[in-house]
Amino acid sequence: MIIREKDNWFRLLLAWHGSVLPQILPRLLVLLGLSVAVVAAHVELPYYKVPLSAAPFTLFGFTLAIFLGFYNNASYDRFWEGRKQWGALLNTTRSLARQALTLSGQPAGAAGPRAFVRLLIAFTYALKHQLRRTEAGPDLARLLPAPLAEATRAATFQPVQLLLAMSRWVQQGREAGQLDTTIQLAFDHHFNQLADILGACERLASTPIPYTYSVLLHRTVYLYCFLLPFGLVDSTGWITPLIVAFVGYTFMALDAIMREIEEPFGLEDNDLALNTMSHTIEASLLEMVGEPVPPAPARSHRYVFD
Amino acid sequence: MIIREKDNWFRLLLAWHGSVLPQILPRLLVLLGLSVAVVAAHVELPYYKVPLSAAPFTLFGFTLAIFLGFYNNASYDRFWEGRKQWGALLNTTRSLARQALTLSGQPAGAAGPRAFVRLLIAFTYALKHQLRRTEAGPDLARLLPAPLAEATRAATFQPVQLLLAMSRWVQQGREAGQLDTTIQLAFDHHFNQLADILGACERLASTPIPYTYSVLLHRTVYLYCFLLPFGLVDSTGWITPLIVAFVGYTFMALDAIMREIEEPFGLEDNDLALNTMSHTIEASLLEMVGEPVPPAPARSHRYVFD
Amino acid sequence: MIIREKDNWFRLLLAWHGSVLPQILPRLLVLLGLSVAVVAAHVELPYYKVPLSAAPFTLFGFTLAIFLGFYNNASYDRFWEGRKQWGALLNTTRSLARQALTLSGQPAGAAGPRAFVRLLIAFTYALKHQLRRTEAGPDLARLLPAPLAEATRAATFQPVQLLLAMSRWVQQGREAGQLDTTIQLAFDHHFNQLADILGACERLASTPIPYTYSVLLHRTVYLYCFLLPFGLVDSTGWITPLIVAFVGYTFMALDAIMREIEEPFGLEDNDLALNTMSHTIEASLLEMVGEPVPPAPARSHRYVFD
Amino acid sequence: MIIREKDNWFRLLLAWHGSVLPQILPRLLVLLGLSVAVVAAHVELPYYKVPLSAAPFTLFGFTLAIFLGFYNNASYDRFWEGRKQWGALLNTTRSLARQALTLSGQPAGAAGPRAFVRLLIAFTYALKHQLRRTEAGPDLARLLPAPLAEATRAATFQPVQLLLAMSRWVQQGREAGQLDTTIQLAFDHHFNQLADILGACERLASTPIPYTYSVLLHRTVYLYCFLLPFGLVDSTGWITPLIVAFVGYTFMALDAIMREIEEPFGLEDNDLALNTMSHTIEASLLEMVGEPVPPAPARSHRYVFD
Amino acid sequence: MIIREKDNWFRLLLAWHGSVLPQILPRLLVLLGLSVAVVAAHVELPYYKVPLSAAPFTLFGFTLAIFLGFYNNASYDRFWEGRKQWGALLNTTRSLARQALTLSGQPAGAAGPRAFVRLLIAFTYALKHQLRRTEAGPDLARLLPAPLAEATRAATFQPVQLLLAMSRWVQQGREAGQLDTTIQLAFDHHFNQLADILGACERLASTPIPYTYSVLLHRTVYLYCFLLPFGLVDSTGWITPLIVAFVGYTFMALDAIMREIEEPFGLEDNDLALNTMSHTIEASLLEMVGEPVPPAPARSHRYVFD
Repeated sequence: MIIREKDNWFRLLLAWHGSVLPQILPRLLVLLGLSVAVVAAHVELPYYKVPLSAAPFTLFGFTLAIFLGFYNNASYDRFWEGRKQWGALLNTTRSLARQALTLSGQPAGAAGPRAFVRLLIAFTYALKHQLRRTEAGPDLARLLPAPLAEATRAATFQPVQLLLAMSRWVQQGREAGQLDTTIQLAFDHHFNQLADILGACERLASTPIPYTYSVLLHRTVYLYCFLLPFGLVDSTGWITPLIVAFVGYTFMALDAIMREIEEPFGLEDNDLALNTMSHTIEASLLEMVGEPVPPAPARSHRYVFD
Repeated sequence: MIIREKDNWFRLLLAWHGSVLPQILPRLLVLLGLSVAVVAAHVELPYYKVPLSAAPFTLFGFTLAIFLGFYNNASYDRFWEGRKQWGALLNTTRSLARQALTLSGQPAGAAGPRAFVRLLIAFTYALKHQLRRTEAGPDLARLLPAPLAEATRAATFQPVQLLLAMSRWVQQGREAGQLDTTIQLAFDHHFNQLADILGACERLASTPIPYTYSVLLHRTVYLYCFLLPFGLVDSTGWITPLIVAFVGYTFMALDAIMREIEEPFGLEDNDLALNTMSHTIEASLLEMVGEPVPPAPARSHRYVFD
Repeated sequence: MIIREKDNWFRLLLAWHGSVLPQILPRLLVLLGLSVAVVAAHVELPYYKVPLSAAPFTLFGFTLAIFLGFYNNASYDRFWEGRKQWGALLNTTRSLARQALTLSGQPAGAAGPRAFVRLLIAFTYALKHQLRRTEAGPDLARLLPAPLAEATRAATFQPVQLLLAMSRWVQQGREAGQLDTTIQLAFDHHFNQLADILGACERLASTPIPYTYSVLLHRTVYLYCFLLPFGLVDSTGWITPLIVAFVGYTFMALDAIMREIEEPFGLEDNDLALNTMSHTIEASLLEMVGEPVPPAPARSHRYVFD
Repeated sequence: MIIREKDNWFRLLLAWHGSVLPQILPRLLVLLGLSVAVVAAHVELPYYKVPLSAAPFTLFGFTLAIFLGFYNNASYDRFWEGRKQWGALLNTTRSLARQALTLSGQPAGAAGPRAFVRLLIAFTYALKHQLRRTEAGPDLARLLPAPLAEATRAATFQPVQLLLAMSRWVQQGREAGQLDTTIQLAFDHHFNQLADILGACERLASTPIPYTYSVLLHRTVYLYCFLLPFGLVDSTGWITPLIVAFVGYTFMALDAIMREIEEPFGLEDNDLALNTMSHTIEASLLEMVGEPVPPAPARSHRYVFD
Repeated sequence: MIIREKDNWFRLLLAWHGSVLPQILPRLLVLLGLSVAVVAAHVELPYYKVPLSAAPFTLFGFTLAIFLGFYNNASYDRFWEGRKQWGALLNTTRSLARQALTLSGQPAGAAGPRAFVRLLIAFTYALKHQLRRTEAGPDLARLLPAPLAEATRAATFQPVQLLLAMSRWVQQGREAGQLDTTIQLAFDHHFNQLADILGACERLASTPIPYTYSVLLHRTVYLYCFLLPFGLVDSTGWITPLIVAFVGYTFMALDAIMREIEEPFGLEDNDLALNTMSHTIEASLLEMVGEPVPPAPARSHRYVFD
């Protein structure tokens, strides 16, 4: 995720990083070359002109507007829902930590809440690794007692195992008479919320926007761009390549950014900063139980959080 | 449901599977033939031209944009709501399994939670079969004790019967003194959620988008496409068939994909992968109670889950 | 509500029932006649032409797109919210029936839950009759003991009286020691949901989309249609009546369908099938308590549920 | 709020009341006069023509469509959210009245629930008066015991004081042993809902759509309308004033209706009928406790509720 | 936040404050100058004209409409969600104050609820200072006992510490036997809501709309505006600078207002009035416990609240 200082409008015009130009530059240069060729042919070989005017492009425009408008909204909704789920994860783990400190019937400073908070942090990292398909082992080993870390690492659905472990921690408190069923259920209510957050993230990760939309959108965008020089050359002459390159840039760049954020848990520039968010959750929970906070993860770029 | 690897932009342009071309190809060829005929007539019989220019198509464009934009959003909302309900089903059954393991007052490793988890899995399959109007019998027989399987199969609203059976399982636990009313109600809260999920899926399956919209949309799309060659031939000459075929493809393909996803519980390529999702629920619940997981269902196509 | 079999695309083009043509045919014929007259005058009296071209219609197009897009979304949202409320009614009554069977402390097969379920069914019918302003008396008499049926019929807000009766049924159970306050409140929670459903339906029925929008929309649609032949005749000649009739059909039909679904509890073809849904609720609840289900209501048309 | 009988399509075309014509007529006549002058100048002084054609108006059209579409949706959302909050007020007060009758532990026919219901009605009127900045004194005096009415009237946040009074009524019931904490909290849950409703209404009333949008929207609409005759006169000749007046009417009327409903608690024709809704709440609650219902408030117009 | 009296339509046309003209005036003058130069060159050097007509601008229009429509909706949603969270903060703190007064088991007039209410007010100010990155010290010192104020000031996540302090206040009440676990959990439920509000505000503040959208939007808007005079000069002649300046004003002003409200917790004119809202919360809570209300904060401008 690129975290922006509120940029000056002028610097936005000149931004390179964050402009998605690097990804689409090759295609854009091909389009520019084609436009130049079309202009040259228009001057040299006027009798062989492709009979295209600007009129049909208005018709394409309606289709494109529908496709792009829809796809863009659907992608951004996925991005924003992913962000909301990770925000809810912060809220719920904080509430659970507060309950562990004030409702679990353990004396101030006891080791129990600190162990429980490590379960919450491990849940966060296990979720992150599941979504990014990376190896959770090191984080689990760092946070959990060895047997639990090992058993969790062996499971297919690791965060589910950690939820079970949290449930058992509370159950033991009740068996030890430190809390009653009412309070046990208050914890349980938040475990259900964690299960909902987990399921929502899995849903976003496992169900993309239907494939056919991607196919249709790409075909429309690219055919539109590569027909455009033929349609414009009559009315815009030698300035055609500039116009086509600019229109092509906006369409291809919109396409590129949409494809980044529709899978919000990935590692591209505009994806969610799961590393940073996991660290924020860890820092906030550790501060609550009075433990030292580990340093923030290194950033891959001056402007980008992972 | 077609599950995509994040495809290269170039492969998207060439995709055959997932392009809905197979369904609409015959209509598209008719449209192409008509366009060629119109161009030929325009060259041979210029005096008998239909007096259509591109201008009225801009007017149609507004109507089409409204219809397509609305219908597409409504269809995708139905698809995504269906997916959300099945995601909620995963979350709720996991939470119920966790409660059965830690709140039901049964000792670790008892048979009770395992039987309860089978009720949850049976509920999932019963819902799937009800939505697809397929026969639930084999799955019920595989998962439930014979009398319950039989009684459920005989009912009109099968998942409702399974909810009653779950309720009775908890009620027996209370009568046996293993849990109190507070905990019984925590289970009951999730049974209500299952009832809500069930009702929401039934609502989506039984109430389509009002029929009149389908009629209007189809008439507009097809009349638009089949009038288009007459309107474009003046300005685009021999390239008309290409333009018409491409515009026709985008409109007909959008129409086809919308009609697939507006009934998200069907068996078409872009419909929800209910088989795969049922299996995921089964696998996750069985892992929680430490039972072996059956193999995943066979897929009907390399890229498609059912 | 028209319940569609997933129609073949071709049959959609030819559908008569569900096309709203019957309602708007007279207006459409007037428009067609006008167009023919305009074409004739254009040929015979070229010097008296109204100086309209297609250009201003693009300007109108923006206004129309805003009005139609907004009105259509608002109408469909009302339709879909109405459907959701009736879906929630099914879910909530099922949950209450389940609670009556497993939480009310009454022995299996006791008369109590059966009487309670009749209260739920009566609530459903009372709501239906209130929304359609029909007489609830016969349904109440069929379902309730005579004194309660009579007292309910005399009230202005009949479903509210039935909610009170349900509350009293639970209260009696508590006074008889069959259930405790915790369980009483679990019932009460659902009574609140029924009150919310009732209020939401009343809100939809009593607050239409602001009247001024209807006025503006109709004026824009009809003036647009009746000016259209003057604007098109120059560029489309003798084919003008066909184009005008088709554009007019889509606009007027959209207007007609919107006006049907914006009041979703009415009796028009595309309105919600309250009769069928009431019967589904009755059938599902009676199956739960093991009582015979009455036959489904007769349908007014082969494709339409009321 | 104008309550409509479902009007015939033809009567909608002729409606005067509800057409917002009265408010905008002067501006519209100025616009009409300008158009006539432009046409006259075009005929008499063709050499001094302003060089405007229809083309730039298509460019304006995009901006206008964005502004109007956004502003209209935002306004209608505010209107509809206001309506939803008042619907929720009806639901919640009904549920509280039901709880007072069946959960408060008071014998049937006791004075307690009747006094409590008057607190609920007083809350409704106090909210109405706060939103419309009118004097709540008379309604409070009519409904409450004198000391409470006086203390409430003196407060800045009157509905908050009434919520406190309701809370104290329940608290006294618990101190008198008529109900336990579980039931007290069931009441409290609804008091929180009333606090949410109150806060949501205050939010709508105190935070308008950002001012800059209003400024931008008005400038765009009026400049567009007053430039329109110069742009159309070339292509539409003597019919220009009619076209301009009609386009101007739709834009100005949309602007006027949006500005009415964006503050839904006001007193304009299309604002919410708070008087009628307060009376409905009063009538429904009084019917529940078996008290006579006062007559409905007088209406300011045959079609309009206040 | 600019709080508007409902302005006369005519005054809106002339408004200076709130028109965002001050920010964008320099850019607008540059654009005006360019347009004048283009017109002059068009008259003096007709052979060196840039071959641009109005046609390609319709193509740009679609892209711009998609970008602006999307960005505007996303920005306004962020603004409105921020407002909703602060509205929920008012509702929840009021409900907590009411619970402290009627459920905490403390006698009327005791010091406990007053101290608790100061914690709620301190939470509000700590949240405000965190969101605006200002120093919370003075407000904490004013409201809290010195040790707690100091400990809170030293924390990274200050509002979280205050939530912990509230939780401990309730916990002490239970240890003192003034309330039972049921009531403790009713408080806890609202503490979770405060945690949710806190997390939602942090989410809005820490996750902007993806940077690439800003870059694309700015490039499209400014290139469009600065190409516009070349495209219009042919058809609109000497009036081009006026048209360009007006179109440029609407686009740049929309861009400016969007960038103000997309970060709703800032200090610009159209941002949320956090100072005023904090004071309202303080005033409402103090009135509930019968304490004097401090004067409202000074306003930085006659029409603007901070």
